[in-house]
Amino acid sequence: MRRKKASMKEIAEAAGVSVATVSRVINDNGRFSEETRQKVLRIIKEMDYRTNIVAKSLRTNISNSIGVIVPDITNEFFASIVLAIEEYCFPYGYSVLICNTNEDKEKEKMYIKDLLAKGIDGVIYISDYPIEEGDLNIPIVCVDRNPHNRNDLAVIESDNYRGGYLAGEELVKAGCKQMVVLKDYRNISVVINRMKGYYDALSKYNVNINEDLVINIEVNFDKAVEAVLKLVEEKISFDGIFATSDMMALGALTALKRSKIKVPKQVKIVGYDDISLIRHSYPAITSVRQNKDELGKCAAEVLLNMIDNGKVDQKHYVIPVSLIKREST
Amino acid sequence: MRRKKASMKEIAEAAGVSVATVSRVINDNGRFSEETRQKVLRIIKEMDYRTNIVAKSLRTNISNSIGVIVPDITNEFFASIVLAIEEYCFPYGYSVLICNTNEDKEKEKMYIKDLLAKGIDGVIYISDYPIEEGDLNIPIVCVDRNPHNRNDLAVIESDNYRGGYLAGEELVKAGCKQMVVLKDYRNISVVINRMKGYYDALSKYNVNINEDLVINIEVNFDKAVEAVLKLVEEKISFDGIFATSDMMALGALTALKRSKIKVPKQVKIVGYDDISLIRHSYPAITSVRQNKDELGKCAAEVLLNMIDNGKVDQKHYVIPVSLIKREST
Repeated sequence: MRRKKASMKEIAEAAGVSVATVSRVINDNGRFSEETRQKVLRIIKEMDYRTNIVAKSLRTNISNSIGVIVPDITNEFFASIVLAIEEYCFPYGYSVLICNTNEDKEKEKMYIKDLLAKGIDGVIYISDYPIEEGDLNIPIVCVDRNPHNRNDLAVIESDNYRGGYLAGEELVKAGCKQMVVLKDYRNISVVINRMKGYYDALSKYNVNINEDLVINIEVNFDKAVEAVLKLVEEKISFDGIFATSDMMALGALTALKRSKIKVPKQVKIVGYDDISLIRHSYPAITSVRQNKDELGKCAAEVLLNMIDNGKVDQKHYVIPVSLIKREST
Repeated sequence: MRRKKASMKEIAEAAGVSVATVSRVINDNGRFSEETRQKVLRIIKEMDYRTNIVAKSLRTNISNSIGVIVPDITNEFFASIVLAIEEYCFPYGYSVLICNTNEDKEKEKMYIKDLLAKGIDGVIYISDYPIEEGDLNIPIVCVDRNPHNRNDLAVIESDNYRGGYLAGEELVKAGCKQMVVLKDYRNISVVINRMKGYYDALSKYNVNINEDLVINIEVNFDKAVEAVLKLVEEKISFDGIFATSDMMALGALTALKRSKIKVPKQVKIVGYDDISLIRHSYPAITSVRQNKDELGKCAAEVLLNMIDNGKVDQKHYVIPVSLIKREST
């Protein structure tokens, strides 16, 4: 079991009373003077704790729960990270409360408010929105995003640059000359770094980059089907596809099959994430594996340490990726 | 917005003070006599509310959050139900706190304890364990399970009998005579009802039931691969497979492909759940679709009504299923 939070002890010290007395005041069991009660409550206010959080965490000594904000629980990539977080936390006696925001900023705000009101000890964010809430004075760890407006939180991310590089290198080595990129349209660090790595691989192997073939779309199976069918209809020639997520790679494969274009013979595909869907597709799709287990474990470990120590030990953690070669290249 | 809970009002009435006074006592903002404070706190205790729940729910007038206990968040079937719950609840201002138990009874207990301590308004259970906790005096809705030891909760389930019947009928009509069943080994209502429907379909069409070909395994891709490879090795002849979950159907398909047995030409397959994996497999697998969206929506609606009205309106809801025919039959 981890070391407990010092909050009750800190309050007791500041108020010049025993921890037991602080506990009695909070639990209102009567064995203390009104003067003591007033003093303890004043100290709690001075120390800027929300009363309900203190009331709760003092009663149990620690709230022993963390919140996870996740954009889409039905996406296996996110669900696997959450599972790893949950498995890491359970032996330490921590509950993990998962909140699915469906990428809705309003929902995210509601959940943060609710989690704070429930006195959680820390939050793991898996989301693309910058954190605006200024008053989150609990430990925060961000997974798979890199907010610019805070320097009091830890960031855990995959080696996206390396992942993009590996994808580009794989297509080039498989003989591709004219590559389409199905690119997440959002201008977020994750995507920017993947593209940087991808371009660097092409440059290194002296393969031309055709910006016209970089197609910005929503990360979505149907949008990818649509985009690739359009390329085929317009008779644009290409021999490789890099999709910045596996759901798009799967959409590309479906569109090519529908157009009677052979994979990998005529067009090669590399996806990203390594979700189980693409292992069972036909042909199975080559993909950049993000280590979902390690992303989740690392996030949970860093957060619990921050909760214990009240500070961020290291700000940035990069988790290695690998290329899983299958039948599509 | 839904009708709010009456707790603060009830306490005010019982204590003979105004609601504002109750609120002031709870929030400890000082504008009340010590006598009033003692009275309000006594009433709260008499009314048998847990202090922390009252402290919280009185402050906001309602906790406005529910918990969902889910066995495996990475299983798309469960994740989709949770998503539907979350989407139903958001417009009513309810937070949905998701707890993943990994089918671990200890985790489930910890989460229940934690959710209660956080003052949630109700719980949706998606789990196979009977509810043992006797003191859950908040509304409960069970999805996809049917506990025998409680009559104060609502049950939402798929029409599992009909699903099993449709699966059996589909295999028979496709010409199968010797069918293997990959059956969830657990003796739970969901599985019992599917098997009952399946047997009734076979009886109706006068097809023999071979109990030796009913294989009890864990619901798991690898276990299904293993089981089917074993049948092939032992040269047991069969021309159809009914898998009581899609993950097992997918495992069966993989084993048959590995053994160079053609689907659907030599062996036909029907799965259960209709998860997206089996739509993208090759060949795509015929499956009994459970209406995950409707299961989640119905559970959320019933729970919010119970929270509003403090009682169960109807005890049992059955959601229709349908057969989605694809290339494996």
